[in-house]
Amino acid sequence: MHPARPQVLIVGGGFAGLTAARALKRAPVDVTLLDRENYHLFQPMLYQAATAELSETDVAISLHEILARQRNARVLLGEVASVDLDRRFVTTDLGEVPYDFLILATGGEPNYFGRDVWESVAPSPKSLAATLEIRRRVITALELAESIDDPAERCLLLEFIVVGGGPTGVEFAGALADARGGLTRTMPRTEREHIRIHLVHAQSRLLPTFAEDISKKAAAQLERRGVILHLGRRVTEIDSTGASLDDGSRLEAATVIWTAGVRPTPLARALPVEHSHGRVVVAPDLSLPGHPEVFAIGDMALVEHDGHPVPGVSPAAMQQGRAVARSIERTLQKRPREPFRYWDKGSMAQIGHYHAVAQIGRLHLSGILAWAMWGLVHLYYLSGLRNRISVVFNWLWLFFTRQRATPIVTSMHHPLEVHGKG
Amino acid sequence: MHPARPQVLIVGGGFAGLTAARALKRAPVDVTLLDRENYHLFQPMLYQAATAELSETDVAISLHEILARQRNARVLLGEVASVDLDRRFVTTDLGEVPYDFLILATGGEPNYFGRDVWESVAPSPKSLAATLEIRRRVITALELAESIDDPAERCLLLEFIVVGGGPTGVEFAGALADARGGLTRTMPRTEREHIRIHLVHAQSRLLPTFAEDISKKAAAQLERRGVILHLGRRVTEIDSTGASLDDGSRLEAATVIWTAGVRPTPLARALPVEHSHGRVVVAPDLSLPGHPEVFAIGDMALVEHDGHPVPGVSPAAMQQGRAVARSIERTLQKRPREPFRYWDKGSMAQIGHYHAVAQIGRLHLSGILAWAMWGLVHLYYLSGLRNRISVVFNWLWLFFTRQRATPIVTSMHHPLEVHGKG
Repeated sequence: MHPARPQVLIVGGGFAGLTAARALKRAPVDVTLLDRENYHLFQPMLYQAATAELSETDVAISLHEILARQRNARVLLGEVASVDLDRRFVTTDLGEVPYDFLILATGGEPNYFGRDVWESVAPSPKSLAATLEIRRRVITALELAESIDDPAERCLLLEFIVVGGGPTGVEFAGALADARGGLTRTMPRTEREHIRIHLVHAQSRLLPTFAEDISKKAAAQLERRGVILHLGRRVTEIDSTGASLDDGSRLEAATVIWTAGVRPTPLARALPVEHSHGRVVVAPDLSLPGHPEVFAIGDMALVEHDGHPVPGVSPAAMQQGRAVARSIERTLQKRPREPFRYWDKGSMAQIGHYHAVAQIGRLHLSGILAWAMWGLVHLYYLSGLRNRISVVFNWLWLFFTRQRATPIVTSMHHPLEVHGKG
Repeated sequence: MHPARPQVLIVGGGFAGLTAARALKRAPVDVTLLDRENYHLFQPMLYQAATAELSETDVAISLHEILARQRNARVLLGEVASVDLDRRFVTTDLGEVPYDFLILATGGEPNYFGRDVWESVAPSPKSLAATLEIRRRVITALELAESIDDPAERCLLLEFIVVGGGPTGVEFAGALADARGGLTRTMPRTEREHIRIHLVHAQSRLLPTFAEDISKKAAAQLERRGVILHLGRRVTEIDSTGASLDDGSRLEAATVIWTAGVRPTPLARALPVEHSHGRVVVAPDLSLPGHPEVFAIGDMALVEHDGHPVPGVSPAAMQQGRAVARSIERTLQKRPREPFRYWDKGSMAQIGHYHAVAQIGRLHLSGILAWAMWGLVHLYYLSGLRNRISVVFNWLWLFFTRQRATPIVTSMHHPLEVHGKG
């Protein structure tokens, strides 16, 4: 560290924060990337770790490794307790960290809309810990169903509910539906048809941020795979034996997965600035109004572009990371900053094996071609040669042998109490 | 399942139980393999998962996968509550399982010699869950040391104590010593020399089951790697800041690993038969005295051979698994059983990278040749092509890039409370 250099503190090693750190590689600054975990999480493929197609080390990449060769950057492990915008330091559980520039990029967390108790019965594939818990519950449910004789309990264990029909819910439901054959291949008593997957979605069509024809294709693909769609239905209650819907119906299931909402982290909500739905309203250069040395980017920030909010997707987060790095460099060069401009590269969602939908401007694609594009784009953005090799190996191994990367679970017996005899 | 066939129930999917199940492949019986976890654990390489060289899926192999093609075998998940030797059934948390032949092979668990509270401050790399906890503690300690400024806390976090100088303790200490360079490679503040490893061993020489010259070589290799040996010393106290020894000295360390003893599981100790040090004393054909239809094998059984107890190693467990399968077949053919004969194939221990000691009869080897033999033998006995490919890939990748398979940890922040401010 060079004491005379401006200190850039980045909070959060997701797509936004990590891209900002890397984009400052040649800037005359010292970069500190602060995160409470020691890895960058490749969230777009996290659902594949939840269905045991990939290992957790495929989607979680060491921050130290990623920044190992960047001499002006260091990684600091810690959790932010508070930010002092006036005196310019951040308080963490390990002490105070002063800054000249601060980039806040703490992302989002699952939004249970006031029913936070649902988190324990319906985990959300948003963090790595919750994803591993989902994998544990999915595999444990199937293992117990294979071992249990009581037909009612067996039935409960083989029903799955996915709440939310956005990209994560659709991708998870599709992956789980296509995982049934492989997961039951070695279980003589359980056929793939015994496993039933429900998807509950509050709106009338899936993937509401996509065009209508894409929504229809996604619904058709899920139904072809046997997923039972409950569109225009809200969940009113979740417990360890299933979920109740707002039409009074009841779905019985030992496993419920939540993908119905994301909200900014508590840090974003606590900042003394204007918020909109919990997100921090930023200036056109992504800085906090009145604090040009502080930026908020990624899922925690509300950024306007052509009158619409920029969506909470990884390309937008990466573009914002690069934009603030540029703004810091221009500020140091005493040049004026430029407003952030979002370049919409389109959206994609994988639906089961070898099928995806994609929308790039006016181009709408679906099928195996969209899936191939999905695979290439995701491999391109995945960090690290090792992870790319491992992901391709796991995909190919699955294709040729139907053996999953991680069908094992530790501490099998906890869920018995969680789900069990309900 | 064929109702008229004799039902063989095997409890435990370790080396002994799994080998018995596979050896019964062509026997006219139905085999049920009962385990509380859904994987076979390759214990001889577990310590490499603890030091992040291998992933947990490299050393834990799905029991369903291993037995997928064996038509007369099924896997049942469940935990044994009791065994009724007279009425011939086993009670599990999922119900009762009757048997005609019963093979008990529940292995061992860490022995804290009456101080079971030490388990939380000094986990033992014996189960997968404890191994992952050890990996989490090792990596978290280094991460926190890199992030913390207080010199005393930093020092505490960089000290490690391994209790026990048998093969597991020696292998773990050697692997950790050789992991220091790679683990700190991406941490600018921490040099490999900052990390200190203590090995405490009650006896006067390491690896007491090996010959004396091997013990000396192992000690020299560990000392060459910077491991500080405390031979002839017993641990009298362990807490979250270190361990006290019986000479009144105190070793300060945030991380303590226990490898000092193994005892049979509670199931073995509860059986109404003669025990020796908790192990079940069996007849020459490995059956329980008075119960020729019940066998006890592996680490839970005390088997005599040439007046000495057969050691608790995986080759012995596998030989016993094959022997009871043969005895069951002979019984069904109304032929007399043969007494078990142990064939000592020798012993090996890896000490750090590219070094091992081996003792095969009168042949004593050490160095890279012994290490190459160690690697080939372990790859040969590892189940599954996928795991072999993955292990070789991880070893090669580590060799060429010094990047470890699994340097990430979830829920980083628990240990702060466990170790922390002492």
